[in-house]
Amino acid sequence: MAISREATEKLAALLGERLSTTQAERDLHGGSETWHRAPPPDAVVWPVDTIEVAAILRIASAHRIPVIGWGTGTSLEGHALAVRGGISLDTSRMDRVIEIRPEDLQVTVQPGVTREALNRELRATGLFFPVDPGANASLGGMAATRASGTTAVRYGTMRDNVLGLEVVLADGRVIRTGSRAAKSSAGYDLTGLMVGSEGTLGIITELTLRLHGQPEEVAAAVCAFPTLEEAVECVTATIQSGIPMARIEFVDAGIARAFNRSAGTHLPEQPHLMVEFHGAKTSVASDADSFGAIAAEFGGAGFDWASTPEARNQLWRMRHGAYPAALALRPGATAVVTDVCVPMSHLAEAVSAAAADIAAEGLMGPIVGHVGDGNFHALLLIEPGNEVELTAAKRIATRMAERALDVGGTITGEHGVGIGKRALMTAEHGDGWQVMGAIKTALDPLGILNPGKLVPDAN
Amino acid sequence: MAISREATEKLAALLGERLSTTQAERDLHGGSETWHRAPPPDAVVWPVDTIEVAAILRIASAHRIPVIGWGTGTSLEGHALAVRGGISLDTSRMDRVIEIRPEDLQVTVQPGVTREALNRELRATGLFFPVDPGANASLGGMAATRASGTTAVRYGTMRDNVLGLEVVLADGRVIRTGSRAAKSSAGYDLTGLMVGSEGTLGIITELTLRLHGQPEEVAAAVCAFPTLEEAVECVTATIQSGIPMARIEFVDAGIARAFNRSAGTHLPEQPHLMVEFHGAKTSVASDADSFGAIAAEFGGAGFDWASTPEARNQLWRMRHGAYPAALALRPGATAVVTDVCVPMSHLAEAVSAAAADIAAEGLMGPIVGHVGDGNFHALLLIEPGNEVELTAAKRIATRMAERALDVGGTITGEHGVGIGKRALMTAEHGDGWQVMGAIKTALDPLGILNPGKLVPDAN
Ligand SMILES: Cc1cc2nc3c(=O)[nH]c(=O)nc-3n(C[C@H](O)[C@H](O)[C@H](O)COP(=O)(O)OP(=O)(O)OC[C@H]3O[C@@H](n4cnc5c(N)ncnc54)[C@H](O)[C@@H]3O)c2cc1C
Ligand SMILES: Cc1cc2nc3c(=O)[nH]c(=O)nc-3n(C[C@H](O)[C@H](O)[C@H](O)COP(=O)(O)OP(=O)(O)OC[C@H]3O[C@@H](n4cnc5c(N)ncnc54)[C@H](O)[C@@H]3O)c2cc1C
Repeated sequence: MAISREATEKLAALLGERLSTTQAERDLHGGSETWHRAPPPDAVVWPVDTIEVAAILRIASAHRIPVIGWGTGTSLEGHALAVRGGISLDTSRMDRVIEIRPEDLQVTVQPGVTREALNRELRATGLFFPVDPGANASLGGMAATRASGTTAVRYGTMRDNVLGLEVVLADGRVIRTGSRAAKSSAGYDLTGLMVGSEGTLGIITELTLRLHGQPEEVAAAVCAFPTLEEAVECVTATIQSGIPMARIEFVDAGIARAFNRSAGTHLPEQPHLMVEFHGAKTSVASDADSFGAIAAEFGGAGFDWASTPEARNQLWRMRHGAYPAALALRPGATAVVTDVCVPMSHLAEAVSAAAADIAAEGLMGPIVGHVGDGNFHALLLIEPGNEVELTAAKRIATRMAERALDVGGTITGEHGVGIGKRALMTAEHGDGWQVMGAIKTALDPLGILNPGKLVPDAN
Repeated sequence: MAISREATEKLAALLGERLSTTQAERDLHGGSETWHRAPPPDAVVWPVDTIEVAAILRIASAHRIPVIGWGTGTSLEGHALAVRGGISLDTSRMDRVIEIRPEDLQVTVQPGVTREALNRELRATGLFFPVDPGANASLGGMAATRASGTTAVRYGTMRDNVLGLEVVLADGRVIRTGSRAAKSSAGYDLTGLMVGSEGTLGIITELTLRLHGQPEEVAAAVCAFPTLEEAVECVTATIQSGIPMARIEFVDAGIARAFNRSAGTHLPEQPHLMVEFHGAKTSVASDADSFGAIAAEFGGAGFDWASTPEARNQLWRMRHGAYPAALALRPGATAVVTDVCVPMSHLAEAVSAAAADIAAEGLMGPIVGHVGDGNFHALLLIEPGNEVELTAAKRIATRMAERALDVGGTITGEHGVGIGKRALMTAEHGDGWQVMGAIKTALDPLGILNPGKLVPDAN
């Protein structure tokens, strides 16, 4: 065990039973949804408030122990793995909705609140928090990965919806970033710097989030297309036309097949778009009409409108279930999930090239995407432990990333860097990656916060 | 002259006539719109491209000469003054629109392009760039101050509309931040860090900006209210109702009087709101109706709809002319311009308290505001050189800032820190200000980029 007895005693005195070094808890916090593997952390802690987080970080600083934030562990690039040992700081007991301020469309929460729990709390207010990665992730984890999801095309990502943070720095100092005002020019945007920093610059202990009014009217539909290219070109045309989509999601024929198997639907086994409109009754109707006209131009057919809330919920449950549904296409498989994002004008070519590449490698790899942002994922299904398949999947993932960079896109639209994307950071950022490293060193000179992730190793 | 002969010779060899040490040019780049004063820079340079900017910074690093970016010099907190001497780096010859990509709603420009020049270039495309500080500022300067203006309530600030940057660092390295994709989770948000950094972290040499489609329909109106409180409460109610305003601007009775004098209008000398709606024909009409109903509840009267583009342009020219119009209320005066931003629910109380305070101090200080964001300015008119009035104005400004902080707001909504707001940074950010200093030192260890501004002095 890499944590000294003295440090363990200090942590135990602080946290009592909310410190664990049992193999079971360590293993739970050493696992990942994906193929990334690392030894488990040496210990797990469950602080309940900012004061405890600060005390933990002071102990960790004094003893140079790595501290890795843990929300719900759903990140896909090995972000929360203890690759250099240390303490997994689990925020699940920091799960209080601190204050809802409906008059300012704001809420302040602890980081362990999940997006579903928050939206349950908000239901009575007529407001909601829109960012929705498929998983029921923690809001702290979502901020730390700069998450987005199906609604980013309309409501933005965590970057756009976090107004302010409370953050505990590596040395235990507590800072508050941002404010409750809608905008500010008061110096460097520390909120924006912390959002997406993956626990390498500080532990988020409180978030102030922007809320949105529940739309007066919602309409959702699913629609099949003859080819992948036509479906994706329909998206580009829709976005360029300025129709305010609330969601516009692509699933390929493989995912349609997966839905039919797992959800018992009878979708044609073709590429589909799943769309949603939010707004006043009249504007939703006219937006839906305009979209229908564009879809028809690209051969879209078999529109199925989900008019009741139940039918809509089923539609999006199905979409959010794409990951397990795809995994079930190949029983026992695990997935290498890719995550590029490209400018709209290059989306169709990027998706086609990925599909062709997957076919050429002989892997099963259905494609889904938040295509209104130009963001899509291949779910590359591989047999656990099969190195040949893993290598092929990594080849595909790297080529997708390189093609995205060639057209001015990014290697990760929403999942983040973790350990999986570090090797591509220089290709995307050049010397900018060294600048990130310099910022990391300035804020965490001992390198205790989630070491081995996102930034270059300090020299 | 503080720049050594050797350094001057190197700069002259690089730039020829695009280096000047004449008193006239130095004075031009040592002036400010406001009451802030400092000695002029030692030299002025006009690079034309990134390579020259990088060469200038390498020379400046080698000789430890301050370099201060200069766009159009319209910033209001002494941002661009050479408080520690050095070189004013004027970007006005970097004024190329590099590439318009209508299919991706993007444009790439050099930093010296002004917002009006950009929108002229864009006219034929059906697209526009929405951010509009009153002044015809440079896009580099607007990014550097995280500017916004009348349309931020709908289209966001520079934070939301800058997708990527090319930046020359203090040591002459060139980095590219962001990408052309709509979103990214690839590491720290260096774009967001540079936006608002006021030339203290790097010189922006290229910007990739988000464009927006020109709305199908635009409607604008001006409307008088019995009292300041009713006008501002109308704004809060409008924003809370979710009506998508494109602009909602407040001017007080003093500004209405100023308009009548300078623009020859016949507005009642009362508080007014100036509003604009963008969208499809049907939605603009219904938005305008909904706003009209809310305004009537708060005593809004005398709606004057500007239905032609000419009438609308006149309306906004008038609003953008509020600053000179207000100055003309007291001939020979200069202005101390305040810039707080508060949560919507505290806006009415913040504006009333400011007005009461100005009256109590016996100064003339009309109030205008981008009130849809909770952001407003008092234009405190003082006699140049009158220390008693300047002190009174500073007292008012400080109290406005303190009251904004008390309700969770910010000391500057859009103007930035420069030298004028540095004394208030600890009050807003606590240890966060030291964190900004640590980032500054990490990126500019010699402290040559716009020293004496925004961050604490390095120790
Ligand atoms: C089926 C499935 C679908 C998904 N779909 C999407 C999607 O559509 N969009 C999307 O963006 N992502 C998606 N993801 C990825 C994942 O849900 C997101 O990355 C999510 O934001 C992770 O949140 P978490 O609470 O699980 O964080 P974790 O996985 O626990 O942690 C993620 C990172 O954040 C750090 N961290 C966690 N909490 C804190 C804190 N309080 N302070 C500082 N650092 C902290 C960790 O150290 C780690 O580096 C999906 C994942 C799955 C399994
Ligand atoms: C009448 C009037 C009305 C105004 N209204 C508004 C308003 O509504 N909203 C608003 O936000 N502001 C407003 N302002 C303030 C001002 O217009 C903005 O701050 C504007 O963004 C400054 O742009 P500039 O090109 O003049 O920059 P400058 O004043 O030349 O420089 C501003 C700062 O940016 C730095 N800088 C400039 N160019 C670069 C570069 N290429 N790279 C790095 N750093 C650089 C400078 O060093 C300096 O620190 C107003 C000003 C006036 C006079």
